[in-house]
Amino acid sequence: MNASGFRLSTRFAEVKSSPVRDILSVVGREEVISFAGGIPDANLFETDDFAAAFDYVLTHQAKRALQYASTPGEPELREQVAARLNRQLPTTAEDIQVTSGSQEGLFLVGMALLDAGDVVLVEQPTYLAAVQAFSLAGARLVSVASDDAGVLPDELAAAIAEHRPKFVYLVPNFQNPTGRTMPATRREAVAEILLRTGTPLLEDDPYGELRFDGDPVAPLAALPGMAAQTVLQNSASKTMAPGVRIGWLRAEGPILRALEVGKQAVGLQTAVTDQLAVAHYLANCDLDAHIAKVAAAYGQRRDAMVDGLLPLLPATAKLNRPEGGMFLWAELGGTVNTAEVLPRAIDAGVAFVPGWPFYAADPDHSTMRLSFVTNTPDVIAEGLTRLARAFDW
Amino acid sequence: MNASGFRLSTRFAEVKSSPVRDILSVVGREEVISFAGGIPDANLFETDDFAAAFDYVLTHQAKRALQYASTPGEPELREQVAARLNRQLPTTAEDIQVTSGSQEGLFLVGMALLDAGDVVLVEQPTYLAAVQAFSLAGARLVSVASDDAGVLPDELAAAIAEHRPKFVYLVPNFQNPTGRTMPATRREAVAEILLRTGTPLLEDDPYGELRFDGDPVAPLAALPGMAAQTVLQNSASKTMAPGVRIGWLRAEGPILRALEVGKQAVGLQTAVTDQLAVAHYLANCDLDAHIAKVAAAYGQRRDAMVDGLLPLLPATAKLNRPEGGMFLWAELGGTVNTAEVLPRAIDAGVAFVPGWPFYAADPDHSTMRLSFVTNTPDVIAEGLTRLARAFDW
Repeated sequence: MNASGFRLSTRFAEVKSSPVRDILSVVGREEVISFAGGIPDANLFETDDFAAAFDYVLTHQAKRALQYASTPGEPELREQVAARLNRQLPTTAEDIQVTSGSQEGLFLVGMALLDAGDVVLVEQPTYLAAVQAFSLAGARLVSVASDDAGVLPDELAAAIAEHRPKFVYLVPNFQNPTGRTMPATRREAVAEILLRTGTPLLEDDPYGELRFDGDPVAPLAALPGMAAQTVLQNSASKTMAPGVRIGWLRAEGPILRALEVGKQAVGLQTAVTDQLAVAHYLANCDLDAHIAKVAAAYGQRRDAMVDGLLPLLPATAKLNRPEGGMFLWAELGGTVNTAEVLPRAIDAGVAFVPGWPFYAADPDHSTMRLSFVTNTPDVIAEGLTRLARAFDW
Repeated sequence: MNASGFRLSTRFAEVKSSPVRDILSVVGREEVISFAGGIPDANLFETDDFAAAFDYVLTHQAKRALQYASTPGEPELREQVAARLNRQLPTTAEDIQVTSGSQEGLFLVGMALLDAGDVVLVEQPTYLAAVQAFSLAGARLVSVASDDAGVLPDELAAAIAEHRPKFVYLVPNFQNPTGRTMPATRREAVAEILLRTGTPLLEDDPYGELRFDGDPVAPLAALPGMAAQTVLQNSASKTMAPGVRIGWLRAEGPILRALEVGKQAVGLQTAVTDQLAVAHYLANCDLDAHIAKVAAAYGQRRDAMVDGLLPLLPATAKLNRPEGGMFLWAELGGTVNTAEVLPRAIDAGVAFVPGWPFYAADPDHSTMRLSFVTNTPDVIAEGLTRLARAFDW
């Protein structure tokens, strides 16, 4: 007990602040080129369209936008989102729970399903903030061995048999942190195991629409039988803008009701202003055209980073070339510990995220995550020069 | 396990949807006069000021408003909020954690402090949604006997000695559901006990500025020694507008860091658009004048409801006349069960909230909560006529 009498709950003894967000607070300095955060380039935001959307809402729907509203979300937004999901998966507005960004969605699913000690199976490595959200709900995270196509089916089946998880958490498109995408054949193999064992799936898909090349792969939720067994999560953060904090969950059946009750407890409803503005944007603007513009820019930046980094890396290193998304993943190999290099890198004026926090267990300390979306190719080139200096490649 | 494989967590076996929100979903029908929800009158919102604030933000700060931001909240908003709190209690921007409405604040405090089985002491009766938020964190809620001035000091001291609670939750101004306010002398007696026993306080004050008559009473957090031992919570919902989902917690020391880590896990940050718009509103508009306008209108409505209801009530009934806030509390006495009358009332075209859900234990089934703020005096009069018919007074 400290002088104030506050005794923190034990969950805070184990759950730490996100290392990524702590790094971000350090690299806010103008002179540091950041490859650290998954921060969209604000210069690509459709600021005029969003200004028009908010203007419409505050002019024509002000009393409603400023008032309390229902917990599942505004009908217009749920309908717009359902229509977009309908391109790949039959979806109605009633299947949608609006969330205050994807992070709240992860938290709500964890709260709906997890008791202390329950197991969640995750990829190796996996998305850091999901680990944080599930851990706060008391979960034990178990990694499933993965290759360049995602979780290995045999390993997944064995882990399900051993741990009887409450659910499996996957990011099948341009995964954070690795950038890898699960091919259709792997998705079919994974779905077959999930269906056979009755194991639910939380399919997190914030990046899927940000594809630069190659063909889209349908979500696991769209495979036969999987829709009722999957919570599918999307977000406005990567395709439109993160500052409005709009995400959504697609689900069917009783879990939707649990998600709604959880949402009541965590915050009653998502900001009505932002819900109506995003709904207006989706109804009146061309999101596909915007995404095409962003994907073209991000694709060039991916090339700038991959092509600039490859010749610098040591012979032990492995680097992928993701077909979309925001992140590169480098396995430097050997004895290098990227966390130990990070302070030198920041001194040299460049930031990245060491790979170890993305592992639920057995981290590979030679790994690092590099975001290629925030900076232009010129700035990327300068950042890589600094990176090479810090690593002494 | 249902067909989908989803097995809900046990916390959802005990925590139900809010009865208030379920009633609200029923009474959305135009022909029902609702005294049920704590819904501000949207006709009193400063829609022009908020339209101008959002227009400024989306015109001059668009890239920032649409981007990710820091977890504690936007500096301008934290500074505006701190300046306002400074009227009663020395506060800096660093003491503020912005939340997505008060409900998220309640949830974050519960998550920061509560382990399964921990006790929270609450008033009898107390705010329903707080019960929900603390229960989801695993708490056991224990009621402290209360009179018209709030919790009874001797009973509070005895409950602290018996239960060693993690914290005490109080709504000292115009409490939800009873409308009662704790006088200064009672606050001093309560603070003395909390200080002597080292028991933290969550002081929830969404209504304090909505005072129609009488003199303001300083928050318990402003009493000597209490600031470091209290989390003080306010919100934009009752004084400005609920749709923007902006609330804030004032705290000091290590608990602020736990609240920030919890906020990361639950949603990274509150919508930047709304944070900047509320900050702009506070910096450029006259909130005091707005509150004076709203208080004048709500004061008339309180009188319309109290004066209209008193002659209708049975001789066994007790009714208060709150000096502010949004709610009346009626104890009808006798054998009446307000929950059983509610369906008849809705058939008659009027809604209220039965009192029983507001009790952590031993509910008085003859009680009911009536909101006087949503409707004009004429509509209130018609609603009371319908209410008398339903109760067969």
